[in-house]
Amino acid sequence: MLHERLNWRYATKKMDPTKAVAEEKVDAIIEAARLAPTSSGLQPFEIIKVTNPEIRAKLSAAANGQAQLVDGSHVLVFAAWDNYTADRIDGVLNDLATERGAKSEGLTAYYEMIKSVYLPRDAQTNFEHAARQAYIAFGLAVTAAAFEQVDSTPMEGFDPDKVDEILGLRERGLRSVTLLPLGYRDASGDWLLGQKKVRRPLDRLVTVVA
Amino acid sequence: MLHERLNWRYATKKMDPTKAVAEEKVDAIIEAARLAPTSSGLQPFEIIKVTNPEIRAKLSAAANGQAQLVDGSHVLVFAAWDNYTADRIDGVLNDLATERGAKSEGLTAYYEMIKSVYLPRDAQTNFEHAARQAYIAFGLAVTAAAFEQVDSTPMEGFDPDKVDEILGLRERGLRSVTLLPLGYRDASGDWLLGQKKVRRPLDRLVTVVA
Repeated sequence: MLHERLNWRYATKKMDPTKAVAEEKVDAIIEAARLAPTSSGLQPFEIIKVTNPEIRAKLSAAANGQAQLVDGSHVLVFAAWDNYTADRIDGVLNDLATERGAKSEGLTAYYEMIKSVYLPRDAQTNFEHAARQAYIAFGLAVTAAAFEQVDSTPMEGFDPDKVDEILGLRERGLRSVTLLPLGYRDASGDWLLGQKKVRRPLDRLVTVVA
Repeated sequence: MLHERLNWRYATKKMDPTKAVAEEKVDAIIEAARLAPTSSGLQPFEIIKVTNPEIRAKLSAAANGQAQLVDGSHVLVFAAWDNYTADRIDGVLNDLATERGAKSEGLTAYYEMIKSVYLPRDAQTNFEHAARQAYIAFGLAVTAAAFEQVDSTPMEGFDPDKVDEILGLRERGLRSVTLLPLGYRDASGDWLLGQKKVRRPLDRLVTVVA
């Protein structure tokens, strides 16, 4: 089932501007990203859900004019934390304690250890670590879209500084890392549709140490 | 279905050393990682599948003694390319041309552009970009394990230099980024099993720009 969905999806190059994705499908896609595993459960990212057409046009302009950002109905922007801070990490611990009904000594000690390792590091190292976690969630959002039979286009080809400015991310301690327009394929206008999905063969992807 | 599987999984803390994962399930997990979307289809990573008990013991020693690496039956090591090279990028283009039956001018120009951007960058920047792609595949492997009802423990808490040395990765132009032991939970010995899964609530994860 998972493989079937992963084989169905493709990086949609042309979306039909007359079709909008239902809000409950977008919610299901976001929920998969929310459930993604992340390092120490930190979830060091946020998701900006953009439907506003003017803002999506600006995002498209910051992404070499890629039209899926305006032809689709929604854009999910994945933005990683620009750094780890004591407040952010304490917030994760507090959520755990609240949800599980008690702040255990073990968990508190664990997150103190995390702070002792992360807080002295430079912001760029921490941002790169946060970005990696955001990519796990991003991959799950792409997968969830396929489960909802919603088309999507995973995008890195944009100017992150411009996107950060358009959405006011830097002042919130966030940096955009990926864009995910959601919509429905325009079957007649998409050169990639119907092309064979190409992946590296197993013998050049996997080494066995038995 | 996807959400149900994501809610079922958890970062297994104690695995049952008497139960081995069937090889076809491991293959299905690797296949999901192989099908993961990556930037420009580069798939800039490899997967090392380790079953050898001595090697897994060494990996455990390099990972603060985490026992899942020996109590499970398989360990998948995700290793990102240490850098982009002309050969590696040309290899991707050649695979595309071979599988689709022709080397199109458009694709050739696209990968020439990619080379012109990536090759002048420093190795660390390229490695970080490759690592992010590996994390997409890693997230899909964790998800696929849940679909196979196989337990897994996503791990970053290890010394990558030691893991690289144990597996001889650096001489192959690879750097370990994550470990994924596979096995079956030891329900009586796992403190995390049964604890509520905690995720940041939507109102602190998502911003809507409508």
